[in-house]
Amino acid sequence: MSKIKPRLFKGARDFLPEQMLHRERIVDTMKKIFRKYGFAPLETPAIEYLDVLSGKYGDEADKLIYKLNYKTGTADEAALHYDLTVPLSRVVAMNADLPLPFKRYQIQPVWRADRPQPHQGRFREFYQCDCDVIGSNSPIMDAELVAITCEVLQTLGFKDFLVKINNRKILNGITQYVGLPSTDTQNICRSIDKLDKVPWNEVEEELQQNNYAANTVKKLKELFHDNIISLPQLKSLLSEIPEALEGIIELEKIFEYLKIWGIDNSNYIFDITLARGLDYYTGPIFETKLPKYPHIGSLTGGGRYNTMIGMFTGKDLPAVGTTLGLDRIFTAMQQLDMLENVSTHTKVLVANFSDSTMDYNLRLLSTLRSNNIATEFYPEPSKLKKQFTYAERKGIMYMIIAGDEEVVNNIYNLKNLSTGEQILLSLEEVIIKLQ
Amino acid sequence: MSKIKPRLFKGARDFLPEQMLHRERIVDTMKKIFRKYGFAPLETPAIEYLDVLSGKYGDEADKLIYKLNYKTGTADEAALHYDLTVPLSRVVAMNADLPLPFKRYQIQPVWRADRPQPHQGRFREFYQCDCDVIGSNSPIMDAELVAITCEVLQTLGFKDFLVKINNRKILNGITQYVGLPSTDTQNICRSIDKLDKVPWNEVEEELQQNNYAANTVKKLKELFHDNIISLPQLKSLLSEIPEALEGIIELEKIFEYLKIWGIDNSNYIFDITLARGLDYYTGPIFETKLPKYPHIGSLTGGGRYNTMIGMFTGKDLPAVGTTLGLDRIFTAMQQLDMLENVSTHTKVLVANFSDSTMDYNLRLLSTLRSNNIATEFYPEPSKLKKQFTYAERKGIMYMIIAGDEEVVNNIYNLKNLSTGEQILLSLEEVIIKLQ
Repeated sequence: MSKIKPRLFKGARDFLPEQMLHRERIVDTMKKIFRKYGFAPLETPAIEYLDVLSGKYGDEADKLIYKLNYKTGTADEAALHYDLTVPLSRVVAMNADLPLPFKRYQIQPVWRADRPQPHQGRFREFYQCDCDVIGSNSPIMDAELVAITCEVLQTLGFKDFLVKINNRKILNGITQYVGLPSTDTQNICRSIDKLDKVPWNEVEEELQQNNYAANTVKKLKELFHDNIISLPQLKSLLSEIPEALEGIIELEKIFEYLKIWGIDNSNYIFDITLARGLDYYTGPIFETKLPKYPHIGSLTGGGRYNTMIGMFTGKDLPAVGTTLGLDRIFTAMQQLDMLENVSTHTKVLVANFSDSTMDYNLRLLSTLRSNNIATEFYPEPSKLKKQFTYAERKGIMYMIIAGDEEVVNNIYNLKNLSTGEQILLSLEEVIIKLQ
Repeated sequence: MSKIKPRLFKGARDFLPEQMLHRERIVDTMKKIFRKYGFAPLETPAIEYLDVLSGKYGDEADKLIYKLNYKTGTADEAALHYDLTVPLSRVVAMNADLPLPFKRYQIQPVWRADRPQPHQGRFREFYQCDCDVIGSNSPIMDAELVAITCEVLQTLGFKDFLVKINNRKILNGITQYVGLPSTDTQNICRSIDKLDKVPWNEVEEELQQNNYAANTVKKLKELFHDNIISLPQLKSLLSEIPEALEGIIELEKIFEYLKIWGIDNSNYIFDITLARGLDYYTGPIFETKLPKYPHIGSLTGGGRYNTMIGMFTGKDLPAVGTTLGLDRIFTAMQQLDMLENVSTHTKVLVANFSDSTMDYNLRLLSTLRSNNIATEFYPEPSKLKKQFTYAERKGIMYMIIAGDEEVVNNIYNLKNLSTGEQILLSLEEVIIKLQ
């Protein structure tokens, strides 16, 4: 057989142990916190029928769905899921007897046929870690998602993160306020959403290119250009617009609950310029940034989507959720030097340098493991130097060397590879020392 | 927008919390044991270039690879990985500086365009939980994989499982012994591999249809038909065939190490009829069955594949691994009634039945959570009966009901939902009781 060039799919990544040990720890941290807030795990397949996925995210996003070469062009055409929110909605639609509220977490890769930008943590295959609550309209649930976001990021060691909070109802109200029909909200949102990356005049240009009247653009500028408007100011400004008022009251409640729970108010803020890209949001929306590191994309994002389940069942069911982006969080922790350099769980390497002591050392191996000590045995009898090098490269802290003399005396030579210290110990002493 | 029928991709599954809680526990059990044996985590993308995957498994298996609708027909055609062994080999080929031996575990879904057979635990999307050792030819590593298999299954509560062990070198030797060229081994293996499902005469028929001479079939029958040949018998029978002898000696060593480690010898056995379906095996092979439940497929399977990495690099590197099939194991545990009925991690539901006590109960909520007690708050003020029903359906054990009177006295009413017992407690007492 001819040699095949080993290559990685563009925009995808391998995670070697030195990355995976951290990723597993991050995911474990999330799961622990999700469970503490009463969320239970769910998994859905990577492959979904294409019609289940399309028509939810917006036209631009729909183009980024990866399709399989499977019954192409038929009703059974299949694709890889683009997020975990639409699959969750499908599950809820197919399981009418789920006890509500249904609070679930879901941690899986998703796929987007996007242009990869590794430095910003943007890939074609990446993990989403979602918490969602189905079947409740209470702002307590929205507030819980913000609280979870803060607790996860704090536990991981982030300090200066900021959860930005807005409400699609406010943005809908603003569309009315500036004299446009509600169908223009998505379009306005797409322009406004760019304000965290580009200055107002670029957004203004885009609005003009989209043929919005000078008066409309002027009114939008007053609201958005310097992003300093507060919730009370907005409340008086939009007091005549019921939908906007409803959205403002929801946010007031969310902020009230966060205060009761003692969430540090330097970690969240009302931000009128937050719009979120996807079409399906209907109420409060949230997104987390690291303001000091603007080149790192959003670490989390979510919001309320009260009409999506109705697309499947014909009957709306309230829903709110957020995604913690494992890859963005991991990329940020790498760039901010928040990760220790580790590449193994192994605590001790049992050396292997003669056939005559093999049985003695193999018995030690299974004894250590049955005492829950992560242990490796060097597979071939080899020079000790080679085995030291292996242990050191992997960051294994201890080595046990038992030769003929140790076997006769029924003892073990334990070497600490960072201090160089060697001590002779009985089996019981070795176990106590390593546990 | 018109209603979309919510449907699940054929051969794929949703895992609701009552399944996921068990699956998460099974995976955690595996990870703990893998780490104890010195394995470190790896992840590779679901999407690989097609040429990386094809030509390793055999022609039949190659047909089951799911292709993406991506650059079809070009050198960059992409597909979903069929197993985790070929991606691991690609990673090793691309990372020449990995410290060897490289012991890694990898737990991810794989995809096969197969005919789904749910009752046997056969699906189109399913999880493989792999441990592999790259860079060592020592039978100690093969033995470790058998030991891990036994420890995982025992820890999960399986009793009568049987790890069948054979060696491709023995099967190659047998091909020589019956007078065939070595190129016939794969073909013979494919027939022999069916012996755990069909009787000898059906396999014999297939061999005759494949035009093997009567004398060859007769010799094969003597070796395979009643599957009682022992390793010592085989050793004297094949003593003139060096490759077979090498394979027998490797197995003798594996059995010796398993004995030293005290692995229960009712859980593993030499089985000359074990062949394994995939082309890439070169040495010892293993597979786990539940002999009392033959309709449940193999729970685990693996073996040595010393030539695969060379397909990428041009230079062979020894490798051995095994897959623990999460879905087979989970299906078996369901069918053998080994799983408790649980659907939540939540320990206590804080009731919500009046706006006047909301703040008091919301403060309790965050206090319980900050004491690591998994707690839910019922999102809307509702009748207590509705909230009891919710807690009971989800299997939440406790409920806390604090109304106006409790607020005045700064106490909490804790109800045990299984016994019906109610007690009034201070905050400190609630925490101690629930921790």
